[in-house]
Amino acid sequence: MTRFAERLSQIDAFHAMDILARARSMEAQGRSIVHMEIGEPDFPTAAPIVQAGIEALRDGRTHYLPALGLPALRAAIAASYPAQARLDASRVIVTPGASGALLLIFAALINPGDQVLMADPGYPCNRHFVRMFEGETSAIPVDESTAYQLTAELIRRHWTARSVAVLLASPSNPTGALIADAEMQQIVRTVAELGGVLIVDEIYHGLIFEGEVTTALTYSPEVFVVNSFSKYYGMTGWRLGWVAAPASYVPALDKLAQNVFLASSAPAQYAALAAFSPAVLEEARRRRDIFRERRDYLLTALRAMGFIIPLVPRGAFYLYADVSRFSADSAALALNLLQQAGVAITPGLDFGKHRAAQHVRFSYTNTMENLREGVKRLQVYLKAV
Amino acid sequence: MTRFAERLSQIDAFHAMDILARARSMEAQGRSIVHMEIGEPDFPTAAPIVQAGIEALRDGRTHYLPALGLPALRAAIAASYPAQARLDASRVIVTPGASGALLLIFAALINPGDQVLMADPGYPCNRHFVRMFEGETSAIPVDESTAYQLTAELIRRHWTARSVAVLLASPSNPTGALIADAEMQQIVRTVAELGGVLIVDEIYHGLIFEGEVTTALTYSPEVFVVNSFSKYYGMTGWRLGWVAAPASYVPALDKLAQNVFLASSAPAQYAALAAFSPAVLEEARRRRDIFRERRDYLLTALRAMGFIIPLVPRGAFYLYADVSRFSADSAALALNLLQQAGVAITPGLDFGKHRAAQHVRFSYTNTMENLREGVKRLQVYLKAV
Repeated sequence: MTRFAERLSQIDAFHAMDILARARSMEAQGRSIVHMEIGEPDFPTAAPIVQAGIEALRDGRTHYLPALGLPALRAAIAASYPAQARLDASRVIVTPGASGALLLIFAALINPGDQVLMADPGYPCNRHFVRMFEGETSAIPVDESTAYQLTAELIRRHWTARSVAVLLASPSNPTGALIADAEMQQIVRTVAELGGVLIVDEIYHGLIFEGEVTTALTYSPEVFVVNSFSKYYGMTGWRLGWVAAPASYVPALDKLAQNVFLASSAPAQYAALAAFSPAVLEEARRRRDIFRERRDYLLTALRAMGFIIPLVPRGAFYLYADVSRFSADSAALALNLLQQAGVAITPGLDFGKHRAAQHVRFSYTNTMENLREGVKRLQVYLKAV
Repeated sequence: MTRFAERLSQIDAFHAMDILARARSMEAQGRSIVHMEIGEPDFPTAAPIVQAGIEALRDGRTHYLPALGLPALRAAIAASYPAQARLDASRVIVTPGASGALLLIFAALINPGDQVLMADPGYPCNRHFVRMFEGETSAIPVDESTAYQLTAELIRRHWTARSVAVLLASPSNPTGALIADAEMQQIVRTVAELGGVLIVDEIYHGLIFEGEVTTALTYSPEVFVVNSFSKYYGMTGWRLGWVAAPASYVPALDKLAQNVFLASSAPAQYAALAAFSPAVLEEARRRRDIFRERRDYLLTALRAMGFIIPLVPRGAFYLYADVSRFSADSAALALNLLQQAGVAITPGLDFGKHRAAQHVRFSYTNTMENLREGVKRLQVYLKAV
């Protein structure tokens, strides 16, 4: 007799994980697969971070740390923001990945039936966190006309008596699109006027190819900003992120963190202290430039083949492509591409419902050599169909 | 304008953390404090585990692992149980600490208004996890007459139409009490008859001073058993635990883990592979014997002073003591002891409501030398009052 909570029927597994598992089992049988389904940088953690982790282990720094995080790391995170962000270390909470940050924020905000506005397409876990706490996601369809992002105007139009918060991601997964500074300022003002809470996911912060890297913290101390060591600093498997929270929420997030996590990983926190060293920052910029080169290559190649990618994505490491010239069912296309061409990509339905069957996501978290091989396979496959 | 979810009013911070923070600030001012408030072994992580962690870092094994955990670690965990437990690796899910395991289980089980039965006193986070998912805790007062544990009879008596699950902990925090095998068998049968789900927290598994170490898995494959590398293997700060789940729940827990955690720490998982090596198991048994020696000393010394501890705790590293001879307000007593005697202990109200003001918890996670000093300070303080 199995007893499942109702929320489970509205929480989905990642299709990307299914694709990955199938790809791995094909590889185990000797097939060659070009991976473009994974949202994880192919680079290892930078050497100085690894070295700091090794030293922490050698020194026995493996005991519990405070629930809010290692004070020196909170200070280093705060200091990594520009002066305009006015971020005091007391507002920085270290979490087990950005996932941990989102969990705390939604646990602190959501009453049953409360609505959170977010863009569709968007990162799938976000709506599941909201559902987990008995809230509802108001998934607002977006397209290239607003750079796949919510705008102040869209937020105002979709706000209801039950709305309590807006979640944005800039750069966005799966589209790599940014929210322009002027629009972000407008959104900050609008959400405040509506009496809501604004949460901005900046986990691809730094992975921006054109223009300046800005943060929503610049525009208000009342915005929640979520970030992570995973993507920019290449620390995915270490599971370490943070949230810059409005001061009034810190005690609530502290007691939630005590109960839910006790603490974030101690070795990871000591290692992350090295993330802001000049050597690592230099390396991170070098990697960003490599991602830019890959984006330029893959974007051009995919467009030439007939994939529709209206905007040049300015950040992250994804291309979100309209595949309607090839298929009306992007999940079937992704599966066929894997099985027949040995190319792994993620179908749009991981990211929502809005035109999901017409889209797929390509991750360029792979070498140029492999990306070229992937493009070659796509060309052969698409000519044959 | 700050917007808090209602659940926050029923989720408390740990008083132990408050005591710890005060103790640390007194230490910073030069005061000497004997720590008996912390639920963390004073031993470092065993050397072979640390070494395995260092090698994982050196080898760049810092990428995401599957949400269910590293297959080799799941297999090693399953193999660490005796044959009678009949635990297949496919039922083992690696989590960020036992906290992560409890989070997944309650997210998978609890609908709003559902009731979970648990003992009062008990571990504070448990009721907060239930509240987080809009469930209710039915806190059943227990005392020495049932070794501070629920019994099949108590469960039957308190079961209502809204009850869905029972959570036990053996050994228990804060009492160190075990559930006898015969009673556990009865409970397994009773909860099944009632149509409920049984969850057994075995995070102090192995830290048992008399009699055999048994697991609730022996009695049914339908029981959730939660465990951790924190206490017995001395890996607190690494944040790594697991749940042995009924087979029918594994896909649900997998998709929840994908969304909530993505994965548990990769370096911690590679390190934990060394936890089951003969050298580490030998070291863990040696540490258990040291804890037993401390228990014997502290139990005798506290009883001689007038603390009432009716039962000899058979496991964990806690003594739960009735202080009614000294005070009717154990929180005030704990604070006075800290400020006037330099002894840090945890007041009963961290563990529930039942006779909480008459109890405190002593942790013997400190050296014999420090425990002796603590006892000396207690003697002086109690004579003076």
